[in-house]
Amino acid sequence: MEVQGKIYQTVWMEGSSVFYIEQNLLPYRFVIGEAKSVDDCCTVIRDMHIRGAGAIGAMAGYAMALGCLNARKKTYTQEIHQARKAIEATRPTARNLFYATEKVFKAGLISPDAACREAERIAGKDADDSWKIGLFGSELFGEETNVLTHCNAGWLAFVDHGTALSPIYRAHEQGKKVLVYADETRPRSQGARLTAWELNQAGIPHYIIPDNAAAFLMAQGKIDLVITGADRIAANGDTANKIGTLEKAIAANYYNIPFYIAAPFSTYDQECPSGDAIPIEERDETEVLFQEGPDADGTMHKIRVASPGSHALNPAFDVTPATLIKGYITEKGILKGEELNVGGD
Amino acid sequence: MEVQGKIYQTVWMEGSSVFYIEQNLLPYRFVIGEAKSVDDCCTVIRDMHIRGAGAIGAMAGYAMALGCLNARKKTYTQEIHQARKAIEATRPTARNLFYATEKVFKAGLISPDAACREAERIAGKDADDSWKIGLFGSELFGEETNVLTHCNAGWLAFVDHGTALSPIYRAHEQGKKVLVYADETRPRSQGARLTAWELNQAGIPHYIIPDNAAAFLMAQGKIDLVITGADRIAANGDTANKIGTLEKAIAANYYNIPFYIAAPFSTYDQECPSGDAIPIEERDETEVLFQEGPDADGTMHKIRVASPGSHALNPAFDVTPATLIKGYITEKGILKGEELNVGGD
Repeated sequence: MEVQGKIYQTVWMEGSSVFYIEQNLLPYRFVIGEAKSVDDCCTVIRDMHIRGAGAIGAMAGYAMALGCLNARKKTYTQEIHQARKAIEATRPTARNLFYATEKVFKAGLISPDAACREAERIAGKDADDSWKIGLFGSELFGEETNVLTHCNAGWLAFVDHGTALSPIYRAHEQGKKVLVYADETRPRSQGARLTAWELNQAGIPHYIIPDNAAAFLMAQGKIDLVITGADRIAANGDTANKIGTLEKAIAANYYNIPFYIAAPFSTYDQECPSGDAIPIEERDETEVLFQEGPDADGTMHKIRVASPGSHALNPAFDVTPATLIKGYITEKGILKGEELNVGGD
Repeated sequence: MEVQGKIYQTVWMEGSSVFYIEQNLLPYRFVIGEAKSVDDCCTVIRDMHIRGAGAIGAMAGYAMALGCLNARKKTYTQEIHQARKAIEATRPTARNLFYATEKVFKAGLISPDAACREAERIAGKDADDSWKIGLFGSELFGEETNVLTHCNAGWLAFVDHGTALSPIYRAHEQGKKVLVYADETRPRSQGARLTAWELNQAGIPHYIIPDNAAAFLMAQGKIDLVITGADRIAANGDTANKIGTLEKAIAANYYNIPFYIAAPFSTYDQECPSGDAIPIEERDETEVLFQEGPDADGTMHKIRVASPGSHALNPAFDVTPATLIKGYITEKGILKGEELNVGGD
């Protein structure tokens, strides 16, 4: 996508470095980060300098490739095993991460070069799949559509284009009138910070809304369609995504508003029978109790936004049962839950 | 309730001043404010130095009494008319505000003294009703109960005891084991700031949760009961309350978890046929786009928490249809929707 007149991907490899858009600094500063080792990459994923299913997957693939490039010949297999373990320990919920490490690891058993090619292929496929998701998904948009999305499943969450936002970008390009309601998405506010930033860059009309306001807008008939991304889709169609997705799906269902998941097949986990088997990452309570941002002068502050002495729970994801999901917008078309097992690549 | 060893009400009148707990500074500082005129009182209500249905009602009653006390003999009726209009223009959704201004205005037509007595009666009745709500509501608690609440309908939102939190206080005093999940309640975070502060003062176990996490906890079987307050209950039982209440009610319904509204009859508006007729206050977008709080040194900062250039919607309330409400915890017992028209005082 274009930022300040230049085309960017979210993450890419050059030589023996992985470069990425530093998402912790957005929307206030646009900075490119550089990771030179597997450890660097793990920190980038764990501390969410990049986040989003596809971006995590691509970064994990590149990290694995870096692990192969940097491994000494003598202890090669052992070292790349360790690298894989370290990368897979960063974030437990995202399917794409495990998909990428597995594929690049296997290629790495042949040669570091093969690993790099496989990592490139995964990143390229992610951008390509996202593009196709946009084309298929845009068919859900009429001449005038008000769409709700949760968290950020835009191009920043993938290598390019995104999933939930990709159909919105395509519909907008097709001249359709689109108004986006972007859930703030507490506690990390990826909706207010990243989705709003993306939509602003693309000139697409949008409002940030508190997470609490979605059902109210639905009740008022102001939402025609809900699209979110996914972090992992189980074999039966149950879908793990950012905390709050479940609540939006239940509300959409109550108001008979179609609720779609947009995700490539790399997010689909055939080994996982149902949502019950998806591990849910519990993140630190400080994400709920504190907020960071710039004051009027642009100076960053970390402030407390909760009563001192109280503790918070911070589950990062929830699982939306397949019964609440009208369809899955994939690179192979818009599928029903029972059609998902047509399989990935 | 007791704060730092001393018993407080949220709002009270002494001489020709109204005193109140400055809720904009909580939970970081406990400060008593003083309002000396109708204008002062209007600012206090409009800028939410006090908030919550009962506290707004009591403050509005005292404000109206102050208007009567301060009105010149010559233009008395005209001035108290104007005062009433100014007070009623502060916040459109809260039923208790209109209930109080009407009653005190009518008493004021007799004499300023009668107005003051009526304002005292309304405040006293609010505390008394809250106490009874607690007693009736505590019957919903078993030996061990996990309860979700939204926003703050604790004693700070009333003159004392509160509504949604009053049964929790009583159940806790009765030796029952209670764990409270307090929704953060964006954008003003009254759950994270005020409910958590209250529960902390009372030593009741609780977790702050992001508004997005309620359905997830329900899905995990961690919530037995939901109780929220109300800002206005229509004749058919439809209930306006803090934005997000509707979403919790829909989710509770989906998981067959009992959802109760706790409110005195002063919140019940027999003139209002259904939720469609309740005006919903739209507040300034800055409440969504910015957050205020102390840094580690205790210095307050106002920071941006959303992408610059994007706009936000900020509806303050939503309406939960009566069909989603299992019962209404009132000062006359726990009632079904169809029993509500037993009437107020």
